[in-house]
Amino acid sequence: MGGVSATDSMVLGGLFGTAPMRAVFSDEQRVQAMLDVEAALARAEAATGVIPKEAAPAIAAACRADLYDLADLGRRTAPAGNPAIPLVKMLTDKVPGDAKKYVHWGATSQDIIDTGLMLQVRAGLDVLLPEVAAVADAAAKLADAHRKTPMAGRTFLQHALPIPFGYKAAVWLGLAARAHSRLAGIRRNGLALQFGGAAGTLASLGGDGTKVADALARELSLPLPDMPWHSARDRIADIAAAVAIAAGSMGKIATDIALLMQTEVAEAMEPTGEGKGGSSAMPHKRNPVGATLAIAAAAQAEARLPLLVASLRQEHERGVGMWHAEWGAIAELFLLTAGAVNHVRIALEGLTVDAARMRANLEATNGLIFSEAVTMALATTFGREAAHQKVEHAVKAAVAAKRHLREVLAEDKAIADALGKDGLARAFDPMSQIGASDEFISRALGSWKKSRNQ
Amino acid sequence: MGGVSATDSMVLGGLFGTAPMRAVFSDEQRVQAMLDVEAALARAEAATGVIPKEAAPAIAAACRADLYDLADLGRRTAPAGNPAIPLVKMLTDKVPGDAKKYVHWGATSQDIIDTGLMLQVRAGLDVLLPEVAAVADAAAKLADAHRKTPMAGRTFLQHALPIPFGYKAAVWLGLAARAHSRLAGIRRNGLALQFGGAAGTLASLGGDGTKVADALARELSLPLPDMPWHSARDRIADIAAAVAIAAGSMGKIATDIALLMQTEVAEAMEPTGEGKGGSSAMPHKRNPVGATLAIAAAAQAEARLPLLVASLRQEHERGVGMWHAEWGAIAELFLLTAGAVNHVRIALEGLTVDAARMRANLEATNGLIFSEAVTMALATTFGREAAHQKVEHAVKAAVAAKRHLREVLAEDKAIADALGKDGLARAFDPMSQIGASDEFISRALGSWKKSRNQ
Amino acid sequence: MGGVSATDSMVLGGLFGTAPMRAVFSDEQRVQAMLDVEAALARAEAATGVIPKEAAPAIAAACRADLYDLADLGRRTAPAGNPAIPLVKMLTDKVPGDAKKYVHWGATSQDIIDTGLMLQVRAGLDVLLPEVAAVADAAAKLADAHRKTPMAGRTFLQHALPIPFGYKAAVWLGLAARAHSRLAGIRRNGLALQFGGAAGTLASLGGDGTKVADALARELSLPLPDMPWHSARDRIADIAAAVAIAAGSMGKIATDIALLMQTEVAEAMEPTGEGKGGSSAMPHKRNPVGATLAIAAAAQAEARLPLLVASLRQEHERGVGMWHAEWGAIAELFLLTAGAVNHVRIALEGLTVDAARMRANLEATNGLIFSEAVTMALATTFGREAAHQKVEHAVKAAVAAKRHLREVLAEDKAIADALGKDGLARAFDPMSQIGASDEFISRALGSWKKSRNQ
Amino acid sequence: MGGVSATDSMVLGGLFGTAPMRAVFSDEQRVQAMLDVEAALARAEAATGVIPKEAAPAIAAACRADLYDLADLGRRTAPAGNPAIPLVKMLTDKVPGDAKKYVHWGATSQDIIDTGLMLQVRAGLDVLLPEVAAVADAAAKLADAHRKTPMAGRTFLQHALPIPFGYKAAVWLGLAARAHSRLAGIRRNGLALQFGGAAGTLASLGGDGTKVADALARELSLPLPDMPWHSARDRIADIAAAVAIAAGSMGKIATDIALLMQTEVAEAMEPTGEGKGGSSAMPHKRNPVGATLAIAAAAQAEARLPLLVASLRQEHERGVGMWHAEWGAIAELFLLTAGAVNHVRIALEGLTVDAARMRANLEATNGLIFSEAVTMALATTFGREAAHQKVEHAVKAAVAAKRHLREVLAEDKAIADALGKDGLARAFDPMSQIGASDEFISRALGSWKKSRNQ
Repeated sequence: MGGVSATDSMVLGGLFGTAPMRAVFSDEQRVQAMLDVEAALARAEAATGVIPKEAAPAIAAACRADLYDLADLGRRTAPAGNPAIPLVKMLTDKVPGDAKKYVHWGATSQDIIDTGLMLQVRAGLDVLLPEVAAVADAAAKLADAHRKTPMAGRTFLQHALPIPFGYKAAVWLGLAARAHSRLAGIRRNGLALQFGGAAGTLASLGGDGTKVADALARELSLPLPDMPWHSARDRIADIAAAVAIAAGSMGKIATDIALLMQTEVAEAMEPTGEGKGGSSAMPHKRNPVGATLAIAAAAQAEARLPLLVASLRQEHERGVGMWHAEWGAIAELFLLTAGAVNHVRIALEGLTVDAARMRANLEATNGLIFSEAVTMALATTFGREAAHQKVEHAVKAAVAAKRHLREVLAEDKAIADALGKDGLARAFDPMSQIGASDEFISRALGSWKKSRNQ
Repeated sequence: MGGVSATDSMVLGGLFGTAPMRAVFSDEQRVQAMLDVEAALARAEAATGVIPKEAAPAIAAACRADLYDLADLGRRTAPAGNPAIPLVKMLTDKVPGDAKKYVHWGATSQDIIDTGLMLQVRAGLDVLLPEVAAVADAAAKLADAHRKTPMAGRTFLQHALPIPFGYKAAVWLGLAARAHSRLAGIRRNGLALQFGGAAGTLASLGGDGTKVADALARELSLPLPDMPWHSARDRIADIAAAVAIAAGSMGKIATDIALLMQTEVAEAMEPTGEGKGGSSAMPHKRNPVGATLAIAAAAQAEARLPLLVASLRQEHERGVGMWHAEWGAIAELFLLTAGAVNHVRIALEGLTVDAARMRANLEATNGLIFSEAVTMALATTFGREAAHQKVEHAVKAAVAAKRHLREVLAEDKAIADALGKDGLARAFDPMSQIGASDEFISRALGSWKKSRNQ
Repeated sequence: MGGVSATDSMVLGGLFGTAPMRAVFSDEQRVQAMLDVEAALARAEAATGVIPKEAAPAIAAACRADLYDLADLGRRTAPAGNPAIPLVKMLTDKVPGDAKKYVHWGATSQDIIDTGLMLQVRAGLDVLLPEVAAVADAAAKLADAHRKTPMAGRTFLQHALPIPFGYKAAVWLGLAARAHSRLAGIRRNGLALQFGGAAGTLASLGGDGTKVADALARELSLPLPDMPWHSARDRIADIAAAVAIAAGSMGKIATDIALLMQTEVAEAMEPTGEGKGGSSAMPHKRNPVGATLAIAAAAQAEARLPLLVASLRQEHERGVGMWHAEWGAIAELFLLTAGAVNHVRIALEGLTVDAARMRANLEATNGLIFSEAVTMALATTFGREAAHQKVEHAVKAAVAAKRHLREVLAEDKAIADALGKDGLARAFDPMSQIGASDEFISRALGSWKKSRNQ
Repeated sequence: MGGVSATDSMVLGGLFGTAPMRAVFSDEQRVQAMLDVEAALARAEAATGVIPKEAAPAIAAACRADLYDLADLGRRTAPAGNPAIPLVKMLTDKVPGDAKKYVHWGATSQDIIDTGLMLQVRAGLDVLLPEVAAVADAAAKLADAHRKTPMAGRTFLQHALPIPFGYKAAVWLGLAARAHSRLAGIRRNGLALQFGGAAGTLASLGGDGTKVADALARELSLPLPDMPWHSARDRIADIAAAVAIAAGSMGKIATDIALLMQTEVAEAMEPTGEGKGGSSAMPHKRNPVGATLAIAAAAQAEARLPLLVASLRQEHERGVGMWHAEWGAIAELFLLTAGAVNHVRIALEGLTVDAARMRANLEATNGLIFSEAVTMALATTFGREAAHQKVEHAVKAAVAAKRHLREVLAEDKAIADALGKDGLARAFDPMSQIGASDEFISRALGSWKKSRNQ
């Protein structure tokens, strides 16, 4: 019996995670990662002459997760307090002959667990990065395609002034591109070998400690830190922050999609699919299921971050509890973030954009959305403050009389003179009100093109 | 492949949860709880004449989780966005004949999911309450047994003045007893039927809505709220707060145990057991494994609370995402809290108290810990402020000369006269410095005796 | 120079807090509350014969915050680590003659600070309760007035089916009423005297401890706990949870208001006022300023909760840090919550409800919102599942042809026969689709009427 | 009346913040930063020919915070919803003649507030960086000075094996150095101009938008982003994460100090000072006041992070609430972190290290702490697993007999033969058990030397 958590439930898990990320942080992979570290340790120690040459292949041969009974390992983990203690015992039992003596040589549980985690994190980033890139690609495509699709820009959930939909998509692109770059930075510089022995000093290896550490880092292709970090957890917090911010960025895009899909707005729609977005009670609904699940996954992912920052406060050379609290939190964070990214990717790649409805909504307020444009056009003549007041006055008149703002303005002689007929028309043409959007979109596309392939 | 989360990992799960709570929130039970609601709904509707009498047993017969392929349900849940939609379809398929028409009659997915959750929460509380009571019982036993076991009271991790160990245990008792009472309060008044139909108005049942709701609440023995609470989630937040505060209270007790077990303090010890508390590198260690895991479980449990309070902010009649984010969080919260409670229960029930070491530590500072006692004894003569200064002076002298404070004080004539020989001796007798401890312990025991059986 | 925080900034503070709550948690009141405890302690000790009768009035006379230089107190607090240490010194200096000796007799800093905080919390609840009641009253008025104002019920931000606006207001009422009841419960049972002396045992008072504690609790009209709670902080967590859930409940109401005010929805509007809701750039906007600020205040308030739950984990008899972390957090939580409540109260009391627009939005989807009503009407004939499919089919046809759903349905002979002309008309009449709303509203009003005056 | 928050209280503020950081985020500086942006905007627009040349100095002359009544600004901010709206009005009123027309030209409130915030963040980082560097320097000094000061390494709060105190200090150095590097990275690349006009497109500037933006970025020496980020808040989250992780890193160091200062451990002591660390009730205490306040400040700082990550989820082109929630949180985060850093800096710079006590504690367990050393020494002969069992056995015997482990081992012939007399002595010499500590310390010092001056 299992499936308690949002991430592992057979019933709910598909809502919030993805299969490839689930594989990276599965029990099998958790154990395999620890065994990979043991095997690499043996190789590194053999290569540096710390243990006999022939011990390494004998140990490595037993470092396959499929040789272990995970349920049994679990039963032995509970009293031991961590999985490395029983795993090392089980591994030692499997290694034949003299090599048995050299299993886990000089290492401590935390070396194996932390370094194993780093291997999983690396694999997790390798799963996440192309998915985030795909979100950026999809947003980039929308940004480029909709440079000239005017819609209402909305601030405080109110019509503000016209923007091209491509501008909004470029904001999404920026979020995804920076999430990608942040995660890629962690992939390059944020990982670190953990290898310090019982109290971090590698005392168990006498004078050979750094030599083995160097070799082990090379074996695993992990950056070698200046020293162990058993109770210095800022790297974990860095990783968690980068992933949680990626999740939160997906939450923002998903929120926009859900808002755009509102019955009264209806400007963009997630792709629909067999059995997707329906309602058990209301046959007509087209629920923003993907956006909803992305928001749910992102919120759950973010909720792991404070724990992983609080875990900085660990006691002395190894803490009482907060290290253990990291294990699940990191894995859950990655899986939930993968879920959020996946839902947003699907939504953006299949987004139906209803340009006609965007245009219709722009017109729905009798020209009020163009009031900033009018204000700025008048400001050269009257100054910003006076222009603002004049337009505010006209807006009130237009609303009261349910007339189009353009008509009301045209009847005010001072305004009409200041603008001229063309000026008035221009102020009410959305595509002449998009300012620097095109340049902004180009810059965002250009940056993504550059950073994508770094 | 699974086992990503701390709660469901085959390898790690035993560290942070308990089997009985795992059963309550397992996938099987999640589905069974929803089916229980469907069955009860059918019975309630049959009893009130809303659906044909014979439909109820036909529907109820199909409401057994073991009839369903959970993996298949999971695959169909992902596109649907929630498990109730496919489950209702699968249930309908299983119900024969005309009864099929009346499955899920008038209900919406959220009615089934939320009410099912309430059934699980009730079962979860029924698992948690006796465990928390056992913690309180164990603390009560320690409090009563150690009314006369003096030890150093410590504030800011410094010796402050002597307290009986029973006083410390009574503080733990108070925390556990109040946690119990808070959870029992939720058990009595904090649950609620969810039944509102698609938008909360029970429109689907025409004029029969409240009649069915009343009957359904009786069927499930769940409190009937004034109205549905699809997007009014304060009851969930209340439940979450009560459980998270219970977890945090366990974290406090566990922290005290870990501190008492420190090599230099060594005044109390968790029970040891086969393979428990050992170290892969250091054969002599007796790690506070239970306390460590209790802290880890509690910290993870608490981390679910902000999410479940943030979920209050749901949009309109049903939200986009935060409802979905609750599902896993509630289950994880209960399981992690059960883990924390379990570790603390075991630690307290088997706690080895080293009274001799407590006494030795009390004496380790050459009498400094009795300085407040001396100050108060002198205050009647000199006033509190002047007495404080006199003792502060003597303390400095004693520390500088590495002498016992009693000797230094005895040499100061003003002090010696004020106290008399007996007074000085009394000030340095820990058991005459325990103030109201005995009464406090009795009050705490009395309150627990009363509230335990409510 | 000051004004760093959202709560104390001269520039920003008005956005997020209220003057009456600011007064309760101001520095003046913080100091006065501590002095009130010192004065009450002197009276309690005089009454129980622990200190001379005449000392009490002499001490009490100096217990007025306006006699103290708060800046000086602040300067002396920093090195001392808490404000009670220097305040007791300053108070002692002000008390004349022999009475000086009896200042702070037998107490510790934490007794004064915690009990002072409890007095502030009580005053804070007394400020908050009528404000929350006013929110409930305003929601109750809306609920009662709009029993027959149909609007679109919205789930997942999509039209679901018609509800009366009064139902939505009753949901708000429920949230506010339960917040009120939760806070009133804390006001009645959640407060507690703190009085334990240096290590919690009242050792400093010898055998007089509980006698003084009893008298002190009576003096301050605070509940007497079984024992001190210096490092058992669950009462603080309880208070924090009740207040944070109140804040979150306001966030939900504010979110609904902001969504209703959307340009495309425009069904309800916050009251406007001089300079309120304008935009520096867009003269036509009517921003949901109150809802926005309520959400901002609520989110900030909620962010204090995890800290106040984490503070449960305090070391031994007094902790290293988490107690200190509570001081600001509690005060900020109350002030920010007061701000959220205030914004929502103003918004609800002055809410403009546009029933015509609600009706228009209901009609905007060519009858799709009535599809659940049709489904249920057909379900008696065809069964729920088949009815659902039939309506789903008609919905698709109506959308594709941009026709009204009623017309499409009327053309399907099986459906037309099943419903009859009247049945079809009834299914598309919003007021015949409100189910149990009226009863729900009445129940919510009745509950509030009862609980309001408890 | 004010002083509600931990950061602004006249009484408490000195505990948790520092004066220089308080100045950076004060109301005066908040307003000055916004005015700096307005002045720079005028200059940039004058330079690019968008407004008349002579308008810039006229506007800039009025951009001095001391010309404004902050209380009045506060009163006008509350209804407006943000401080930029009234500030722009007040500024416009102060600017004489025609220049008045060009105040705030083309900008929106959020441009001014966000860019002003970025100026404050930059100034805040400039205050924080040297303080964090001083922490690293102090830790570096300790690390270098105590390469040969053996103490007990402690894992799970238990003696593990000997380490030099310099190793522990090097762990602190690593945390501080990485915090410095993270903050310096934000200082270099994490800031960004905000300039987008009402909906982010700079529509108000027609074709001149990017030209002005480029010039404005140069004026303020702020990085120019690809496009505005009104509702793309990941940069804020990045800043918050870097600062909160710095705070958390201080919390770790402070925790270690508080643990080392425990009465029973007493290996290191914070500096004491006039009125610092005393107790109102206990004259002998030397409380870890600095560590306590550092932990309190750090915990409060960290509590702002989740809010600033949640704020990613903002609606459309400007959100309803979460932007507003950032204002106080960012300022509070910086101030609280500055407080944590300051307390740790003082503690480390004045740390009294008691090498004799460290040595005494090492010996307090009759040699048990050397058991890993013995194990490793035996492992070459018996294999790791068997050696572990042998030593575990000897440890039990030594504990049972209260004898020194060395004696017990010497009596076991197999062990004595395997080790030889010298080997046994070496295993019990702490300085021969420090492994790679010296090299680790050197690497940490070298890295800091390099990164410090980047």
